[in-house]
Amino acid sequence: MSVTAPQGFEAAGVAVGLKSTGKPDVAVVVNRGPLKVGAAVFTSNRAKANPIMWSQQVVQDGVVEAIVLNSGGANCFTGSFGFQTTHQTAEKAAQLLGVSAGDIVVCSTGLIGTGDDVFRAKVLAGTEHGIAELSADGGEAASLAIMTTDSRPKRAVAERDGWSIGGMAKGAGMLAPGLATMLVVITTDAVLDAAQADAALRNATGRTFDRLDSDGCMSTNDQVTLMVSGASGITPDFDEFAAALAEVSQDLAKQLQGDAEGASHDITIEVINALSEDDAVEVGRSVARNNLFKAAIFGNDPNWGRVLAAIGTTDAAFDPYDVDVWMNGVRVCTAGGPDRPREDVDLTPRATDLLIDLKIGAAAATILTNDLTHDYVHENSAYSS
Amino acid sequence: MSVTAPQGFEAAGVAVGLKSTGKPDVAVVVNRGPLKVGAAVFTSNRAKANPIMWSQQVVQDGVVEAIVLNSGGANCFTGSFGFQTTHQTAEKAAQLLGVSAGDIVVCSTGLIGTGDDVFRAKVLAGTEHGIAELSADGGEAASLAIMTTDSRPKRAVAERDGWSIGGMAKGAGMLAPGLATMLVVITTDAVLDAAQADAALRNATGRTFDRLDSDGCMSTNDQVTLMVSGASGITPDFDEFAAALAEVSQDLAKQLQGDAEGASHDITIEVINALSEDDAVEVGRSVARNNLFKAAIFGNDPNWGRVLAAIGTTDAAFDPYDVDVWMNGVRVCTAGGPDRPREDVDLTPRATDLLIDLKIGAAAATILTNDLTHDYVHENSAYSS
Repeated sequence: MSVTAPQGFEAAGVAVGLKSTGKPDVAVVVNRGPLKVGAAVFTSNRAKANPIMWSQQVVQDGVVEAIVLNSGGANCFTGSFGFQTTHQTAEKAAQLLGVSAGDIVVCSTGLIGTGDDVFRAKVLAGTEHGIAELSADGGEAASLAIMTTDSRPKRAVAERDGWSIGGMAKGAGMLAPGLATMLVVITTDAVLDAAQADAALRNATGRTFDRLDSDGCMSTNDQVTLMVSGASGITPDFDEFAAALAEVSQDLAKQLQGDAEGASHDITIEVINALSEDDAVEVGRSVARNNLFKAAIFGNDPNWGRVLAAIGTTDAAFDPYDVDVWMNGVRVCTAGGPDRPREDVDLTPRATDLLIDLKIGAAAATILTNDLTHDYVHENSAYSS
Repeated sequence: MSVTAPQGFEAAGVAVGLKSTGKPDVAVVVNRGPLKVGAAVFTSNRAKANPIMWSQQVVQDGVVEAIVLNSGGANCFTGSFGFQTTHQTAEKAAQLLGVSAGDIVVCSTGLIGTGDDVFRAKVLAGTEHGIAELSADGGEAASLAIMTTDSRPKRAVAERDGWSIGGMAKGAGMLAPGLATMLVVITTDAVLDAAQADAALRNATGRTFDRLDSDGCMSTNDQVTLMVSGASGITPDFDEFAAALAEVSQDLAKQLQGDAEGASHDITIEVINALSEDDAVEVGRSVARNNLFKAAIFGNDPNWGRVLAAIGTTDAAFDPYDVDVWMNGVRVCTAGGPDRPREDVDLTPRATDLLIDLKIGAAAATILTNDLTHDYVHENSAYSS
């Protein structure tokens, strides 16, 4: 059900030929209210796609009526023509829904630098077609239409006492902080105001999507949007809502990790006993971005030397000669030297746990990443050709 | 001839079984004077190998008598036993050469976390054996003994009017700023004092080895050492010497790039019209470290969108919508949109030129990198197993 699990939402996913495969490529999600609250976080990449620049303006007033998403083209670096395509998409949706274009969020994903008049015509047709097909159980169709190289749709729902949160996500590469080629739409029928929605969303993304760093590459098009209908009539405790939103976000983030392009291991990097959470994040990220470590995990090689070499490039507080490293429950390095033998570590399961004990404080953070594989290279060397 | 091209140096390379292949694995280079001036730069990784910690002390007084290098083991994270191995290596060389152990630089390269008593015995035997075989034309043998996954030795010589500079290098992966799994020894028979040697070396490495960023991974063992014999009796103009040293350094850096593990393209990233040189370096490095861009080049795909997405993650001064990108002489992006068609770019040659025009200032920098290939993943997933 994804985004249509909560009351007050309709969605659709349609095919208009943006994908050469003929699969669905335009999704629409509409908030039927009574509230029309929206919040969003965007990529921190300074090279922003046209739909990002548009949508950043849309969410400023905390009102979002609907969101139109297309796969099959990022509409990034497509000049003023591309921005007009985004604008016309919002105008088209607004006209058909009888609302203001300034309350329509637009998202695009696909190849950068493409977005000609054929692209525009298809996106506009998809917007019209999608709105005609809106239904209260269209969440599944919408989640299929936003897929690019994803092998499966990503959906999550959290049910609470009389209210719920639903979400869908796409993304399978370019997963990195400040978000990734990741589009996420989350809906709720709980009652929240715009400030609460924004605060809960920033809290959730900061510790979930922002800590998914599959390949260190940051996208130009990333966006996570929360839409609030309030249709349940229930006003949950804020902390309870924030926790449920973080749960849905983490569920989707793990699904993104599990479907990352070409990956054969889902690596959970847990950094403990850091002096600060920032230090823990920095250390975890440095390992998550180390190609030599990632290639070693692909080879089922518990090469802890590469972990320490990666940590050593950070400014975090720690003593390189007093760090413990555990892989899948086996302490392979302690106090600047080898501990248990490499042979004791079984890296054949897809789920891989790396625990780094900095032994200098009490803060912790977890970063999710993937290994570096032949398939990753293959998929990303052939994507646009 | 490499390090024995200049007068006043002897070298050797011997095999003592550190490499399972039986190939040469210990090299010795000795400065016969009359000057015994030395300078070195080291990895900026905080996780430093034992030979780095030792050698940093050795070069502090500007005197280096000899250098002992081994492949087949990095002697990093091997505890105090490993540090004693380095110390004993220096003591052994000093005793045999009749000099102070405090003037013997030691370098190691190979797998992190290995360095037991068998390793120690072999390194000590290699030191003894190498010193017994020293000769004035041993530079070639020495350059072979420091190879690890290198497919060929790296050597360079600059001849000037009565004096010369010679160098050797090893390194084929983990090439990144702050140096890489890169060991370099450079010799000269020009007359320089310790301060001049240090200044010339820092100038040269800062613009050559430090701008080689093959895979973004920084080693624990990197070191570039300059040894000055003064045997030519000629005191060159400092700027002339610095230029010759930079020439030899760049020659070796390009050989390292050309032999990087698994690479199929040598990519020269030239950033021009930046506001500052630091900005140009930051922009170049962000592209050099972008796996999606590197995989695209492997696939001969002129995916300029990934270049802009990488630049967008930096803090450099520029307008993302007023940047030009050229690939192998073809302007594929200008002013935030596509320019010449992708099909016009021929990426089949190994030498690949990426030119990024930031159009905001007058500074420039060049970063050398490689593509991300199946072979890179293969070699680095199987290295320690």
